[in-house]
Amino acid sequence: METVAIRNIKRADQAIIDELEKLGVATAHEAQGRAGLLQPCLRPIYSPARIAGSAITVLVHPGDNWMIHVALELCRPGDILVVACSSENTDGFFGDLLAESSRARGVRGLVIDAGVRDTRALIEMRFPVWRRAIHAKGTVKATLGAVNIPVVCAGRLVTPGDVVLADDDGVVIVERRRAKKTLVAARRREREEADKRRRLADGELGLDIYNMRARLEAAGLIYLDSLEEYEQYKNRA
Amino acid sequence: METVAIRNIKRADQAIIDELEKLGVATAHEAQGRAGLLQPCLRPIYSPARIAGSAITVLVHPGDNWMIHVALELCRPGDILVVACSSENTDGFFGDLLAESSRARGVRGLVIDAGVRDTRALIEMRFPVWRRAIHAKGTVKATLGAVNIPVVCAGRLVTPGDVVLADDDGVVIVERRRAKKTLVAARRREREEADKRRRLADGELGLDIYNMRARLEAAGLIYLDSLEEYEQYKNRA
Amino acid sequence: METVAIRNIKRADQAIIDELEKLGVATAHEAQGRAGLLQPCLRPIYSPARIAGSAITVLVHPGDNWMIHVALELCRPGDILVVACSSENTDGFFGDLLAESSRARGVRGLVIDAGVRDTRALIEMRFPVWRRAIHAKGTVKATLGAVNIPVVCAGRLVTPGDVVLADDDGVVIVERRRAKKTLVAARRREREEADKRRRLADGELGLDIYNMRARLEAAGLIYLDSLEEYEQYKNRA
Amino acid sequence: METVAIRNIKRADQAIIDELEKLGVATAHEAQGRAGLLQPCLRPIYSPARIAGSAITVLVHPGDNWMIHVALELCRPGDILVVACSSENTDGFFGDLLAESSRARGVRGLVIDAGVRDTRALIEMRFPVWRRAIHAKGTVKATLGAVNIPVVCAGRLVTPGDVVLADDDGVVIVERRRAKKTLVAARRREREEADKRRRLADGELGLDIYNMRARLEAAGLIYLDSLEEYEQYKNRA
Amino acid sequence: METVAIRNIKRADQAIIDELEKLGVATAHEAQGRAGLLQPCLRPIYSPARIAGSAITVLVHPGDNWMIHVALELCRPGDILVVACSSENTDGFFGDLLAESSRARGVRGLVIDAGVRDTRALIEMRFPVWRRAIHAKGTVKATLGAVNIPVVCAGRLVTPGDVVLADDDGVVIVERRRAKKTLVAARRREREEADKRRRLADGELGLDIYNMRARLEAAGLIYLDSLEEYEQYKNRA
Amino acid sequence: METVAIRNIKRADQAIIDELEKLGVATAHEAQGRAGLLQPCLRPIYSPARIAGSAITVLVHPGDNWMIHVALELCRPGDILVVACSSENTDGFFGDLLAESSRARGVRGLVIDAGVRDTRALIEMRFPVWRRAIHAKGTVKATLGAVNIPVVCAGRLVTPGDVVLADDDGVVIVERRRAKKTLVAARRREREEADKRRRLADGELGLDIYNMRARLEAAGLIYLDSLEEYEQYKNRA
Repeated sequence: METVAIRNIKRADQAIIDELEKLGVATAHEAQGRAGLLQPCLRPIYSPARIAGSAITVLVHPGDNWMIHVALELCRPGDILVVACSSENTDGFFGDLLAESSRARGVRGLVIDAGVRDTRALIEMRFPVWRRAIHAKGTVKATLGAVNIPVVCAGRLVTPGDVVLADDDGVVIVERRRAKKTLVAARRREREEADKRRRLADGELGLDIYNMRARLEAAGLIYLDSLEEYEQYKNRA
Repeated sequence: METVAIRNIKRADQAIIDELEKLGVATAHEAQGRAGLLQPCLRPIYSPARIAGSAITVLVHPGDNWMIHVALELCRPGDILVVACSSENTDGFFGDLLAESSRARGVRGLVIDAGVRDTRALIEMRFPVWRRAIHAKGTVKATLGAVNIPVVCAGRLVTPGDVVLADDDGVVIVERRRAKKTLVAARRREREEADKRRRLADGELGLDIYNMRARLEAAGLIYLDSLEEYEQYKNRA
Repeated sequence: METVAIRNIKRADQAIIDELEKLGVATAHEAQGRAGLLQPCLRPIYSPARIAGSAITVLVHPGDNWMIHVALELCRPGDILVVACSSENTDGFFGDLLAESSRARGVRGLVIDAGVRDTRALIEMRFPVWRRAIHAKGTVKATLGAVNIPVVCAGRLVTPGDVVLADDDGVVIVERRRAKKTLVAARRREREEADKRRRLADGELGLDIYNMRARLEAAGLIYLDSLEEYEQYKNRA
Repeated sequence: METVAIRNIKRADQAIIDELEKLGVATAHEAQGRAGLLQPCLRPIYSPARIAGSAITVLVHPGDNWMIHVALELCRPGDILVVACSSENTDGFFGDLLAESSRARGVRGLVIDAGVRDTRALIEMRFPVWRRAIHAKGTVKATLGAVNIPVVCAGRLVTPGDVVLADDDGVVIVERRRAKKTLVAARRREREEADKRRRLADGELGLDIYNMRARLEAAGLIYLDSLEEYEQYKNRA
Repeated sequence: METVAIRNIKRADQAIIDELEKLGVATAHEAQGRAGLLQPCLRPIYSPARIAGSAITVLVHPGDNWMIHVALELCRPGDILVVACSSENTDGFFGDLLAESSRARGVRGLVIDAGVRDTRALIEMRFPVWRRAIHAKGTVKATLGAVNIPVVCAGRLVTPGDVVLADDDGVVIVERRRAKKTLVAARRREREEADKRRRLADGELGLDIYNMRARLEAAGLIYLDSLEEYEQYKNRA
Repeated sequence: METVAIRNIKRADQAIIDELEKLGVATAHEAQGRAGLLQPCLRPIYSPARIAGSAITVLVHPGDNWMIHVALELCRPGDILVVACSSENTDGFFGDLLAESSRARGVRGLVIDAGVRDTRALIEMRFPVWRRAIHAKGTVKATLGAVNIPVVCAGRLVTPGDVVLADDDGVVIVERRRAKKTLVAARRREREEADKRRRLADGELGLDIYNMRARLEAAGLIYLDSLEEYEQYKNRA
């Protein structure tokens, strides 16, 4: 088993991370070429919530949260804990004590493909968490995992130092080296979407804004006038 | 594949739809003879929420939201988009732009057996959505589906023009031609329930209100005094 | 099939139950030796919510809520209904009428490994419910189950009269005869945790508070300086 | 609730049904315009297995198999029982006795969106079944459902008299009135596929047989020589 | 946490266990009053398979199979290992080495609400296993659980020494003290079923054998002649 | 979106791959430090089955199998197709025609985190497949994905050229550069296990072979003589 902890990781420029935080997960995902999304099983414990930060990755084993303690020492202000588990597990790996410690370290939040507990306290602290499950079940501290190695969390590779962006839509990972390019592309997309949104609000149709009519016809879309005509059409077909 | 869009559908009387909206999903389901419910996997993105309207049905394929654009042109004020997918899929078929366009068309809400995104924006717009998943993942516009043909959405047949009623309990479909009868039956049920609710609140038991005691005895229910007596009973049995 | 209803059960001391209510589910679970948790599929219908009371157990069959009516007559103020189903089922066994009746009997809440309906009304009544599903689907009253026999609810044995404690983290069962001992242990744990929480908030690390460093080293944890060093380490390994 | 049983239904021509049986589910699904498939949760109890017949539809409620008895009287040789349940349920609705009765009526098999039991006996009888679950749990006979009304089974509308075709790939419904057209289209597809299969077996590529190269290029596919070149490409992008 | 191992348990009479083995799981479940079934998530690794024996219960924690080693020392010929996990987990707790050891101890099989591995070897040894998952993932030996305390396995309480009966339909637990009564009732049921099976095979209908016609009519079943008549009926309703 | 295809990848030494094939998935997983396993949702379409080869990775989008055609041109004898999908999907991406083409290219099998169809034909061809689902549903060829970039398949990173090893226990990935070391470690493990297996078959206990008794005692395991003694123990505790 991987039983290492890596002390130093490269992080993206904090100013870029803070700008990315203003964007939503959906926009960053699109700007990055529709990549980087974690699976939708990860949901926030309260809403609205939005964070961005540098990934400190943790690999744990089912029912054992020892490595999260190791990880906390390696966190810096602005970091986000990203916890992957070696097999599917819903135990409560993280509760109010670890949240208190995380906050003291400047950690901005937690993304965990497993369970958390003490959710009421976490919500009252406004400590943001995206998780697979809520379960009060305690964990042990007996088996080593790893900190700051590349992990797969909720179906997506996360390299330590990647930018984590999370909001009500879920979690997206922006590769550290592509953070700036993604920011530029995301802002451009936001501008374009704002314009489209205005036109749609004014009653223009996506069919016209995106010039879809010819393509739909070429693809074979057939307009019929009524369900009765559809029945006739089906019988002919 | 079905690749048609039907322009004109019959809708129920708007006054009846607006009256149905005042009833809950559970009541309408009962009034309709315990029929018409969609599966419980469809949940609202915010709560409380309640809408009623005429179904504009959309059949999409996994990862492709093209047909929703086609559907919007065919919507009228008071309609509700009902989106079925040809196989289980959690991609984000619908976000803030489509919600803006829907609102401009007078669409009252969305019922979708798939995923949505931009949920924070949708909530802020108070655009009501019942969905299977929340996922930021984008969709393409490459494969035709259909608009306004009968579809199966979350386990239930929906014919275009059926009345869709959705609240915190989920979604029920009231057949267009039975909308008035269902409304009459639902109101009667509401009155009866209000009376029962008062009696129950006063401490009367359902056992007495519904005359269950004789039926329970006939069915073989045995009252025992204690867990100890139950142990003896089991050993005799 | 078990078709009995047991009238009288032993309950824990109400004062102890009320003290347990002040503790969270996670703490009670730990204090009881990490036992008694129900599976995380049971979630509250609103949040925050916290209750404690004596279990009135109900065994129902899929789609049939008859026994809940039988159970209500046997409830006393301070009780909690715990409903287990003989196979997985999401039908709506419990709605506003049964909640009204429960409230009139002094029942503090419902824990049900099945579905409920009329959730908006339940929330407005502030009647707390932990459930597997929300579904408007009605149930019949045709098949006998049992009341106040030991049942397995969401993966955990519940004996009538056990203390049920539920909050945002889920549901835990405290055995009636161990209620006092669990309370004592839970309070001790709370005191210890409060101290640790203070130290963690001050920036001390769990690694130091729990003396983990030597154990981690003994277990074989290796600290590396960078991802580059990790690549070299892996190639050597 | 729907509580009717319809005695007489129209069936497709038996000769056409028997010809459809020779085709696979995948081919019939394609020939019908990619429609008619039931969800993949329905799996056969043994393999290989293949049947075709006329649908006798049954709507049951969770934990209650009464209507299957009603349905059997209405079956004729060549029919297939298609059982839908009003909510998700895994109870054992069908076992060796019902299989014996089905066989005596000439029923060719069972498609059920619920559970079955006595699977060893069913396999030994070679009575083919496609089911959601295997569970020994017994059912009651207390609540009416319906026979031979249109039902939604595993996500797909089934009208009584539709042709049911099932094999190792699952279950497809061919609309009664389109049975002949589907057969013609399926045979044509089989011939075309046989030719393609030969060419592919000879080492020709789908890229060439289907003329995909130009379309791939137009869509923007970029060929790179190595993972190293890919890294450079990503950094430029 | 429960950290005990109980050396001596009471077992049912071996002759009765061996007779129960001849019966199927469905029959034993019915004979016991429709009680004792484990959830259908437990499936055999090969088929046909059928075993009966005395339960040696094991409580493990996710990812840790230490207690299975402790349990094996306490097994006697004729026993069956019943392994429950404190939370849902699919790791491979049991493989060919443990099967070899089990066989040497006379253990007849394994029922585990978790994962197993080395399935090919287990099948070749003809060592029967009912399990939730197949996963090669290894487990550690770090955290104590318990042996021979009452556990909940796949939704059902199992007391050490209970009779475990497993076949292609799943697993049923027969309470030790009721083993003989269950055997008697099961044999009676088998005789009755054999008679009914003969009559059904001869073409008699369940409707007649069970005298259902009058009850169906009393319950309100309406026979209609055709789908057309059903449409009229619905419009009248 | 990633829309590239990489022509040339580095593969492990074929002789080493062929030796790895002789080992099981569980052994290779252990030998690699308990790493590399895909999630247990991937199951073989027939059993027994075992393959090893070099990974050709394919990233597809839901309902679209275009990239598999692109991948086939880049396969060499001894390769295994590893198909990841950008979101969960059960459509039938691969059937008999693609299997025929794969075989003509010398491809040894398919690992796909999605659905396949024509399973009867695949089984008759003895073309081994590990898949998430079986579904006859057809896919389109409209959206580009990628070939031979690193992908996450069933929860695990796969780099093109990694060694894929699959058997009845599932699928494990051995990193190309560690293939030889893993083989050496796996053989050592096999020898050790063979010895242990012999001793266990002779009736020795794991408790003794692994020297667990002292560790169990140190961890706090308490042996009790009977369930009665356990009741007393619990009451004291």
